[in-house]
Amino acid sequence: MSNNWKKHFSETAKRSRPSPVREVLKVLGQPGMISFAGGMPAPEVFPVEQFAEGAELLRTQGTTLLQYGTTEGYTPLREFLAKWTAPRLGRETSLDEVLLTTGSQQLLDLFGWAMIDPGDVIIMEDPTYMAAINAFANHGASFAAVKMDEDGMVVSHLPALIEHIRNEEGRKVKAIYTIVNFQNPAGATMSVERREELVKIADRYGLVILEDDPYGYVRFDGNHLPSIFSFDKAGNTIYAGSFSKILSPGVRIGWVSGDKDIVRQMAIFKQALDLCSSPITQVLTYEYCRKGYLDAHLPKIIDNYRTKRDAMEVSFKKHLAPLGMSWVKPKGGFFFWLDTGAIDSNELTRRALEKKVAILSGAAFCVNPEAGGHSARVNFTHSSPEVIEEGVARLAQAVQEMKIPA
Amino acid sequence: MSNNWKKHFSETAKRSRPSPVREVLKVLGQPGMISFAGGMPAPEVFPVEQFAEGAELLRTQGTTLLQYGTTEGYTPLREFLAKWTAPRLGRETSLDEVLLTTGSQQLLDLFGWAMIDPGDVIIMEDPTYMAAINAFANHGASFAAVKMDEDGMVVSHLPALIEHIRNEEGRKVKAIYTIVNFQNPAGATMSVERREELVKIADRYGLVILEDDPYGYVRFDGNHLPSIFSFDKAGNTIYAGSFSKILSPGVRIGWVSGDKDIVRQMAIFKQALDLCSSPITQVLTYEYCRKGYLDAHLPKIIDNYRTKRDAMEVSFKKHLAPLGMSWVKPKGGFFFWLDTGAIDSNELTRRALEKKVAILSGAAFCVNPEAGGHSARVNFTHSSPEVIEEGVARLAQAVQEMKIPA
Repeated sequence: MSNNWKKHFSETAKRSRPSPVREVLKVLGQPGMISFAGGMPAPEVFPVEQFAEGAELLRTQGTTLLQYGTTEGYTPLREFLAKWTAPRLGRETSLDEVLLTTGSQQLLDLFGWAMIDPGDVIIMEDPTYMAAINAFANHGASFAAVKMDEDGMVVSHLPALIEHIRNEEGRKVKAIYTIVNFQNPAGATMSVERREELVKIADRYGLVILEDDPYGYVRFDGNHLPSIFSFDKAGNTIYAGSFSKILSPGVRIGWVSGDKDIVRQMAIFKQALDLCSSPITQVLTYEYCRKGYLDAHLPKIIDNYRTKRDAMEVSFKKHLAPLGMSWVKPKGGFFFWLDTGAIDSNELTRRALEKKVAILSGAAFCVNPEAGGHSARVNFTHSSPEVIEEGVARLAQAVQEMKIPA
Repeated sequence: MSNNWKKHFSETAKRSRPSPVREVLKVLGQPGMISFAGGMPAPEVFPVEQFAEGAELLRTQGTTLLQYGTTEGYTPLREFLAKWTAPRLGRETSLDEVLLTTGSQQLLDLFGWAMIDPGDVIIMEDPTYMAAINAFANHGASFAAVKMDEDGMVVSHLPALIEHIRNEEGRKVKAIYTIVNFQNPAGATMSVERREELVKIADRYGLVILEDDPYGYVRFDGNHLPSIFSFDKAGNTIYAGSFSKILSPGVRIGWVSGDKDIVRQMAIFKQALDLCSSPITQVLTYEYCRKGYLDAHLPKIIDNYRTKRDAMEVSFKKHLAPLGMSWVKPKGGFFFWLDTGAIDSNELTRRALEKKVAILSGAAFCVNPEAGGHSARVNFTHSSPEVIEEGVARLAQAVQEMKIPA
């Protein structure tokens, strides 16, 4: 068969790489495999019964649910979010400041369409969410990495970095991307002082900020912090939220709150991407939220995941600390970030799979894929404490075998 | 408020235009407005009860429906489509030849990602689906237009056109895009002879074909024709289908059948676009299909729309023929394509809105937006025969007033 497809692939396609997560996911179905690899909510915390209460709407509002929806999203759900996010955003946003997206992943692509020209520099935490790297890279972005510590992005490094990129490299810095709470994968949360400082820096240098916050409502310890958005009176920050971690990834609903010019421009692009998101999942999600179920359910999710986080730390202390490993204990979110010390984490990931436990090497999350070879992301939300203990024990076994010269 | 957003918009954003449909849609909510503007299914043909039967799955399979799905789509639905499309495609496709997309609109964007480099030429029928023009233009495509007659794209014009673009203009032709049945907006269906000829031309010139067929199963007269895909033994054609016109646009499910290399590449891009489509709508759609409801329901849709098409033609003959207008009577699909003769269709569209009837001027559908000024797309699926008669009468009134010198 003569095949023209590969020959005709775009340059972007030729550059694209399947996600390493995707490759790991393929073997997760193997019997006995314990997965700490994904970022999936626990099935037992899905509010199946409460969500299913809305099923009657498939009948009673069937003709609305089965029809096209508006590109901006189901208006009552946008209104709900405008109110519900007010405590975090510092004010109630107006309807033309809220756009619903097909998962918050689509927001990243829409941001790319609206903002990124080939060669533009996006400043990212390093490590960061791999599918944000991919989404922006598709649009031709290049990246500048800022390191993190326990208080999140070290924003004091930004001025010198921005000036270097502009003046020494002659490149255009477009935006700063941050996963502000319980960062994926590194677990850090940006301090309030740094949030305020970041807003000032963006304003001084004429940059915009994409504040990505899929995990923000899943906090185990301490109080919620005001968003970067709430400090930004100049409107240079847009805030991205998601139902994936607090209700269901299956509804495929994220949202963006922010300046109406960028929201409108994203809506124009969304027309070409998928016309609209599904009214079925938007109406069902609104029905769930309208009844107050979302707020009532969050504590259950948080308790479930806190227990698992703590269980994983106990197992880490028992099995991995003696092997010289350390980690960041997150105050929320889905992941531990493991420092594998002298151990090559790419090799560890391969060996762990042989022991039937899946983790992701840090390399997948680094702007520079050569980096991250001594760290790994370990998910705790999707396994029971018993499975967590067994999985960490297997991981320790894999480490021990690597330490014994073959 | 100092605002950096517009200042920082990408070049693609600066080029982008909101769809004229979008602007018309804004006034459709006005009381008394009759809309022939959209391409929406009729609410009364939605199989609300049968689709809602699956609602119990929100409980019984809740943890699957609320979780992330695979990027390629829900496997049972892909298997169903591989079988269901076999008569049209000439063979049963394998699982790795089928990808589900978030509406068939997403397929157009995925095609752009996988295939289009800036400046690549896509050969399109002119007029064509406006959101395909937008989706490809976002990726930097340029366009070459081929005219249509009652047998669809005049494929005999292709060799000279392709050679001209290559040899005279020095540009790269990538693909041929065709809406093969009941073309949107022009209504024509490509003859079998031309389908076969098109495959030969694509093979001879090393091009690929995107066969877009959202309306193909909505045929009022005559027999279904074999797809272009079915003639293409070299695998240069991919076939795009959609549930939007045959079941529901609200499920946001389209699919593409074709070569596994391009399907795999599109799946890699889909990860960055929205990770996966909603398992909720995919599982509900599969449940509906599994029970045989889709095949049983199609005749109802077809009867409903045939009646409306015929009603619209009666009204056209009564009101518009005497005013010197003509039209293409489609054998299926959603639209009449009206030749407005000497009348400027952009002006007619504006005047018609004042009479509370909405149509879309041909300009919206033309690769060259200066063209299409004497044609209009008129939808018949969404209004009752009575409303159709009233709307066409109003349209005629608008025409008559344009003919009277002010």
